[in-house]
Amino acid sequence: MSERIGWIGLGELGFPMASNLLDNGYQLTVYNRTRSKAEPLVERGAQLATQPSELAAKGGLVVSVLWDSDATESFVTPEFLSRMEGGVHIGMCTGSPEAAQRLAKLHAEHGSTYVEAPVFGRPEAARARQLAIPYAGPQEAKNRVKPLLTALGGHALFDMGEQPGVPTVIKQLGNFLIISMGRSLAEGLAIAEGAGVNPTAAVNMLAESLFPVPIFRNYGKALAEKKNLLTTSKIPAKDLSLFHRLAEDHARSNPITQTLLQLTLAVDK
Amino acid sequence: MSERIGWIGLGELGFPMASNLLDNGYQLTVYNRTRSKAEPLVERGAQLATQPSELAAKGGLVVSVLWDSDATESFVTPEFLSRMEGGVHIGMCTGSPEAAQRLAKLHAEHGSTYVEAPVFGRPEAARARQLAIPYAGPQEAKNRVKPLLTALGGHALFDMGEQPGVPTVIKQLGNFLIISMGRSLAEGLAIAEGAGVNPTAAVNMLAESLFPVPIFRNYGKALAEKKNLLTTSKIPAKDLSLFHRLAEDHARSNPITQTLLQLTLAVDK
Repeated sequence: MSERIGWIGLGELGFPMASNLLDNGYQLTVYNRTRSKAEPLVERGAQLATQPSELAAKGGLVVSVLWDSDATESFVTPEFLSRMEGGVHIGMCTGSPEAAQRLAKLHAEHGSTYVEAPVFGRPEAARARQLAIPYAGPQEAKNRVKPLLTALGGHALFDMGEQPGVPTVIKQLGNFLIISMGRSLAEGLAIAEGAGVNPTAAVNMLAESLFPVPIFRNYGKALAEKKNLLTTSKIPAKDLSLFHRLAEDHARSNPITQTLLQLTLAVDK
Repeated sequence: MSERIGWIGLGELGFPMASNLLDNGYQLTVYNRTRSKAEPLVERGAQLATQPSELAAKGGLVVSVLWDSDATESFVTPEFLSRMEGGVHIGMCTGSPEAAQRLAKLHAEHGSTYVEAPVFGRPEAARARQLAIPYAGPQEAKNRVKPLLTALGGHALFDMGEQPGVPTVIKQLGNFLIISMGRSLAEGLAIAEGAGVNPTAAVNMLAESLFPVPIFRNYGKALAEKKNLLTTSKIPAKDLSLFHRLAEDHARSNPITQTLLQLTLAVDK
């Protein structure tokens, strides 16, 4: 467990995941645009890189947990690629499938491998090591990174094959469904409350019968208590924009996606 | 367990529920507009009524499982009410909360009681005795009917208090959420498939991680295999119309409800 891992991205989700690796005995070299976010990890023994290319080492492992595909592609420079020959880059952002395909091709052309592994889970789930991770890439690389995905907080790992782009589409689909359920719950509870029903009683009944899922237990209860969690995050608008683009790119009708996107953008204003 | 129950409504859901009561040793007098549907129960010992008022008996129990509020209100005639003094009418349709309030008032004025108990569950769930039932009414009547609700297939009973209309609003809310999840799943899987993802693999991953609920396991798999169950039923359009009216009556914004209603009506054409 003494392998040194290069890590880029210490945001809300990346930080607890990197922290889990330290807990599990991995050695880390970390890079983050806002350097102060790396300090708690450096205090625990992580090395600090001053630029992303320093994370790469011949035959090594690099994990990126960035906001989107653009941020991920922008650090995969010719210098980075030449330094990580024989290595594996595990990309964990929620981005576009086309970018995942480009990254897979680029790494292959430079003698390294891209494993696409977007993450389902809130920061609390990362801390509790309850992340769900669909992943894809060449079989040998997947075998190598599987223990790492578990060590960083993966609880349910789903091998989606070798075709790049598939895990990203599934991640976008899952996010769309979560947002649809959350927004539907918000709309429905407001209507029920308008009709004189106690929203907490309604949520409890549904969470105990038809919908025994975390979003009903947690988000439903927060909604019933008037804490609208969705309005504080930019993630839903980003994820719905990605899914909307995916639908349009493939000429699929998407009236629910469009309705949710409009709702989300209206909230962001 | 030899109490005689009056039963009206032997449709897809009513039939297996009445059948469960016979299995549990109850005596039934049944009425159904289409008389032939009652025959299998008559063969098992149920008595046949030629009109709904014959179901009522002083101090007795009557269960109605009809299409909507109109069908329920139309059989609660002055004759019916005078014959069931001291009795309890358990109304199990998905209707409007206002109708439930009118029925509660009407029964109270005639010395009987209305217990509102709409049913969550498909016919298979009725047969498997896995129904979820929110119910409301005067406490004494609820105590009396609770064993009956279990005997007819209720697995999860939720006492929602004494205020009429509340269980109906919760039923409408639950149906809205089920339809929203089903339609979102259909839209999302079509988009994912357009982007080259195997829908069965996507549904399996989601059902095993984020959404361990029957609609993903059952409906999701049917969708992935191109069996669109929603298009064969008139229930979604009816339920969404009710919920849309509820939202408009109480001046609540309902963009998702409207989108789903348009989708459902488009399918029905």
